[in-house]
Amino acid sequence: MNTTSTPAQATALDSYRRAAIIGGGVIGISWAGLFLARGIDVVINDPRADIEDLVLAGLDEITPALAELGLPTENLTERLTFEADLATAVADVNIVQENGPERLELKQQIWQTIERAAPAHALLASSTSSIPATAIAKAMQQPERLIVGHPFNPPHLVPLVEIVPGKKTSAATVEQAKAFYTALGKKPQVLRKEVPGFVANRLQSALFRECVHLVAQGVVTEQELDEIVTASIGMRWAVGGPFRTFHLGGGPGGLPHFIEHLGRAMEANMWPALGNPTFDDTTVATLIDQAREAFGDGTVEELAADRDRAQIALMRALGETPDSGSAGRA
Amino acid sequence: MNTTSTPAQATALDSYRRAAIIGGGVIGISWAGLFLARGIDVVINDPRADIEDLVLAGLDEITPALAELGLPTENLTERLTFEADLATAVADVNIVQENGPERLELKQQIWQTIERAAPAHALLASSTSSIPATAIAKAMQQPERLIVGHPFNPPHLVPLVEIVPGKKTSAATVEQAKAFYTALGKKPQVLRKEVPGFVANRLQSALFRECVHLVAQGVVTEQELDEIVTASIGMRWAVGGPFRTFHLGGGPGGLPHFIEHLGRAMEANMWPALGNPTFDDTTVATLIDQAREAFGDGTVEELAADRDRAQIALMRALGETPDSGSAGRA
Repeated sequence: MNTTSTPAQATALDSYRRAAIIGGGVIGISWAGLFLARGIDVVINDPRADIEDLVLAGLDEITPALAELGLPTENLTERLTFEADLATAVADVNIVQENGPERLELKQQIWQTIERAAPAHALLASSTSSIPATAIAKAMQQPERLIVGHPFNPPHLVPLVEIVPGKKTSAATVEQAKAFYTALGKKPQVLRKEVPGFVANRLQSALFRECVHLVAQGVVTEQELDEIVTASIGMRWAVGGPFRTFHLGGGPGGLPHFIEHLGRAMEANMWPALGNPTFDDTTVATLIDQAREAFGDGTVEELAADRDRAQIALMRALGETPDSGSAGRA
Repeated sequence: MNTTSTPAQATALDSYRRAAIIGGGVIGISWAGLFLARGIDVVINDPRADIEDLVLAGLDEITPALAELGLPTENLTERLTFEADLATAVADVNIVQENGPERLELKQQIWQTIERAAPAHALLASSTSSIPATAIAKAMQQPERLIVGHPFNPPHLVPLVEIVPGKKTSAATVEQAKAFYTALGKKPQVLRKEVPGFVANRLQSALFRECVHLVAQGVVTEQELDEIVTASIGMRWAVGGPFRTFHLGGGPGGLPHFIEHLGRAMEANMWPALGNPTFDDTTVATLIDQAREAFGDGTVEELAADRDRAQIALMRALGETPDSGSAGRA
């Protein structure tokens, strides 16, 4: 479970001196902060007039978390530049991480420009959470070069990156993406098929459907449900994941015993009983009222900072924070 | 998030000198270990001839985790007794925690005996995960006394206890249960309605349905899925719960913004796309094969010990372990 950089990983990262971040929103800023803290020069491409102010303010916000992760954070912005022309921005980089709006035609257009302008060796990755590489790459000359590198928000903090190859993505690109994100200190997972929502968001969405149902039915409030999750399954899944948890829940017989004795009962009794809520007016009003009650005491920014601190403490306890000794290259 | 015992909690626990544990299986043993470590004398009632050996072996297994939680574990079994007659076992206790088989008629019968034999002040709680207190209490003279205190396995380690009052359970019993489990260092949550599976198991079941689907469809293996969960949503939900996570995921607009912009898209695109797997022969064979590959290197016991150590480290990082200074009363 330890993601401390090894010498081999540091070497792998050595070939990534310069990155282009396309789109300087929340995800782009988070990637930029992590890349910079890992010693990679970053150029940001975003058409907005006030992009420099937005990015600098965003980097200020995440710097404490980067520091708590043990990464070097001094003079980060000295290696940060902005370039409004997309082709120029990617002309001399080793990695392009695109975080544009989730619109297929726009992404197709962006990537047609990038593949013509970026060096042949550059890793070409989209952060998209919903558009398959196969669809984006349809308009590309070299579809084998494009891959989805979907982070779990925020990328500078949450280890997961879902690597989702399109139908034409080459094996070499998959390996390159895996090596890069691993060297960056992330925990990449390569999916074997392109499915809507990939994996983490599908799972999140499945659980959330039942959460909305239970609150809408008045079984628990949002706050009570959150407390139930943190005090049980959240804690479990942070250390073991659902299959391992049920393997251990099956006693000496493990998962086979679990499936036979509890899984079949789950299929027969529990799955059909799960809720099918909708975001109708009554439900939305309930959810918003309870959110005000549960989370109204702090701004989202303050609450997020609290959450990030707790999460870094958890990561440190599980040996999941980067090794600051091998992280910097400055 | 800190559950360290306060003086008030220690006082609350002082009125629980003696507990009857009905059923000495995995759950009963875990409760017994925790009760003993918290200074409560325990009598175990279980009809099996070899119950003493089973319980003593089980207590040996969980003692390291109790110690790592910071609880006193010396001479625990000096305050442990066994009593094969149910009425005698509960005659002089402050709390009855029943962990019998999940069969309604059997539980009804057990509880009819208990309510006649237990002192009037005793807290009467069932660990049942599937039978509502309303149904069990139908055969009782004083249904207002029975409550469900459903732990998340194993009770000595996972903080959650779902308190689920039946239709006739009195408010006083609810308060008594809440005070007792809190004093014990647990994180009780009172549900507002009796629903099948209560809350934690419903949520677990909703997520697991999609896990089985994704593995059956070949999108990921069990091990890959577990790694995706631990590196993303598990970590998130250990510190924040799903509503808080999405409140913070909504940016400055919080949960209302999340629902409007992402929740509705989730309802329209993701929920209908979630899987509906069955434990058919092919799926079960896949699940078992992959479990062997993923978890075959250690016994369930060894893997569970690893998991428990990681979980205690996580709990310590989040300030969720009991305060050993105020925990013991010996």
